[in-house]
Amino acid sequence: MQSIEKLTEYFRALPGIGPRQAKRFVYALLLESEEFLNEFSDLIKVIKKQIKVCENCRRFFNSANASPLCRICGDKNREASVIMLVEKDIDLENIEKSRAYNGYYFVLGGTVPILEKNPESKVRTRELIYYIKRLLESGHLKEIILAFAVNAEGENTSEYVQSILRPILENNSVKISTLGRGLSTGSEVEYTDSETIKSALKNRS
Amino acid sequence: MQSIEKLTEYFRALPGIGPRQAKRFVYALLLESEEFLNEFSDLIKVIKKQIKVCENCRRFFNSANASPLCRICGDKNREASVIMLVEKDIDLENIEKSRAYNGYYFVLGGTVPILEKNPESKVRTRELIYYIKRLLESGHLKEIILAFAVNAEGENTSEYVQSILRPILENNSVKISTLGRGLSTGSEVEYTDSETIKSALKNRS
Amino acid sequence: MQSIEKLTEYFRALPGIGPRQAKRFVYALLLESEEFLNEFSDLIKVIKKQIKVCENCRRFFNSANASPLCRICGDKNREASVIMLVEKDIDLENIEKSRAYNGYYFVLGGTVPILEKNPESKVRTRELIYYIKRLLESGHLKEIILAFAVNAEGENTSEYVQSILRPILENNSVKISTLGRGLSTGSEVEYTDSETIKSALKNRS
Amino acid sequence: MQSIEKLTEYFRALPGIGPRQAKRFVYALLLESEEFLNEFSDLIKVIKKQIKVCENCRRFFNSANASPLCRICGDKNREASVIMLVEKDIDLENIEKSRAYNGYYFVLGGTVPILEKNPESKVRTRELIYYIKRLLESGHLKEIILAFAVNAEGENTSEYVQSILRPILENNSVKISTLGRGLSTGSEVEYTDSETIKSALKNRS
Repeated sequence: MQSIEKLTEYFRALPGIGPRQAKRFVYALLLESEEFLNEFSDLIKVIKKQIKVCENCRRFFNSANASPLCRICGDKNREASVIMLVEKDIDLENIEKSRAYNGYYFVLGGTVPILEKNPESKVRTRELIYYIKRLLESGHLKEIILAFAVNAEGENTSEYVQSILRPILENNSVKISTLGRGLSTGSEVEYTDSETIKSALKNRS
Repeated sequence: MQSIEKLTEYFRALPGIGPRQAKRFVYALLLESEEFLNEFSDLIKVIKKQIKVCENCRRFFNSANASPLCRICGDKNREASVIMLVEKDIDLENIEKSRAYNGYYFVLGGTVPILEKNPESKVRTRELIYYIKRLLESGHLKEIILAFAVNAEGENTSEYVQSILRPILENNSVKISTLGRGLSTGSEVEYTDSETIKSALKNRS
Repeated sequence: MQSIEKLTEYFRALPGIGPRQAKRFVYALLLESEEFLNEFSDLIKVIKKQIKVCENCRRFFNSANASPLCRICGDKNREASVIMLVEKDIDLENIEKSRAYNGYYFVLGGTVPILEKNPESKVRTRELIYYIKRLLESGHLKEIILAFAVNAEGENTSEYVQSILRPILENNSVKISTLGRGLSTGSEVEYTDSETIKSALKNRS
Repeated sequence: MQSIEKLTEYFRALPGIGPRQAKRFVYALLLESEEFLNEFSDLIKVIKKQIKVCENCRRFFNSANASPLCRICGDKNREASVIMLVEKDIDLENIEKSRAYNGYYFVLGGTVPILEKNPESKVRTRELIYYIKRLLESGHLKEIILAFAVNAEGENTSEYVQSILRPILENNSVKISTLGRGLSTGSEVEYTDSETIKSALKNRS
């Protein structure tokens, strides 16, 4: 295979990119300066070396110093009684943007598809167990919030995570909670499904 | 104006119908049988006479008998302590479909646009005040649920309705609540706005 | 069934209207004046009586006078050598709007679905044969233009119509043509299918 | 700026990529192997060196050998009497895919926006003039096909190119043509604009 086609294949590996758009990317790069291409290339080569995975929450972070913890996990002023489990880094960033949460996080790194035979291979099972156990030993943890998508795969992930956590939490008073359901911004009563209406009624205030 | 064009104009008065679709409707009718057209025509002529507006909730209902009340308002077994305010008939029907609510309703018949100078002309203000006063006299009412769309117009309607109700509710322990906000069915954490995340965290369970 | 539900069913018979929108229409009508409803109802009742089907092209038209022909078919100044076959009335109106055609028309009143066993029941077969024979007798007809959609059903209709016309046109020098294919307004070369590119190249000018 | 953010910026330079998707790309890369990242990085670094711009048509091509011409321009069996002008490489590839054209090409490398003051900077003006002059000297050229998008910018580009070519073509019998317009695959008569109907009628066959 030749260069244009090879590079097209690499761009196709990016999420949501089809063959046509991948090729557009290649042609767009061909119009960029040598300098642009060199810097872009260098960044890709070193990105994994410059980025660490946080030892606590497992998110990616820019490792400016020797700390094995990301900015959030290294912040002693956050609320130690609560940890939120999210599917992926961008979910965590979106929660942070809301400034509504001040506890710690754990990034599962994926979801568990329906009927998946090896769910432990789809999310960071071992790391989750290890981290939760450490938090239990510290004695501060009171609540684990599951913050997954409200769809079949999110709910399957929720069930799997609960089945993993339940044995560990035995004899502890730690509560597992899930994000509240209700009307989202933009919801119209006429088009809202019954499940959401039920939750919206229960969570009325 | 001639028949095809005139009838096209009438169809254009229906919500969401543009000139092209209105004309399609006319041509579609021309292909229907005489019998179809006669029955359709008769139904339109008498619909307002056969349909009553419920004296309590103000929704439209098929008046099979002499009762001035719709099926819901005439049902003594529903929860008398709570009334839900909705914008329109279809909202009420969608709430009913969820089987999550067993109280009574009031249909405002519209919303209050932002900066509206005569909000009382946009919703059934007089009828609402009259009905709430009667409910207060009965002594059962404990909660008024505002079930409006989660958008600027829905919130403006909510504020208007509260400004109307507050003076009436003085010296009563009736609570005004709104439908809970949170993740709707289908919500993904990555794409959820901060306001909804805040509510979803508050309403976690 | 009761009035609201019955009328909803009638609105559902209109093209492209689902149950929810049909019900919206009913509620919208309930908010209209008695006068509006009476006029709307009257128009529907008489529409078929006030509208004739043109004896030549079979389109619907407002019959202001005793003429059995529509405005176009009754116009002696149009080009008698060419007739265009279209699927439906709105297609004819759209062609007229372009002011690019000055011949006569015939409205098939439908299309022939793929694998249809009784194609003659789907389009005005008998009327088409009758009209084309009359035009052949008049001695003016030189071309029949097929103006159907460029999709599988349009092409199937085209094949059916040609199979019907071929025996009639035998021993006549009348030509059957189809609308030219090429780039439509808005087409981009990158996204154009091969079939259209082929035609666009053939029809370059 | 730190690595994740910096690399996000580079991905944003790709056509059609917003900040959120750019960040998704970075996180996706972080999950790829070192090997993948090294190869991807190397390809980007060398792509411009491995890719030549064809001396005739100006498209990008994988330069396997010492030839300054791409596969098409180097093919002596193609039709030398006709050259097609396209906006960009992908347009050329799409035309080739149709197998409907066997002449040569020239890639403008862009379009001329409406009211652009320096149109010569937007497309390969100098290279076009140089190439057309050489083709005229060879004595084979008979037709220049303009294959641009059917929209305002495409038509503006067409006018600019013609204004450039006219002085060169003086005293030659070379014809400038454009791709034919008409119904594209999928077109329905009801929704087709008047300009396209006019062309479809003119190009009927």
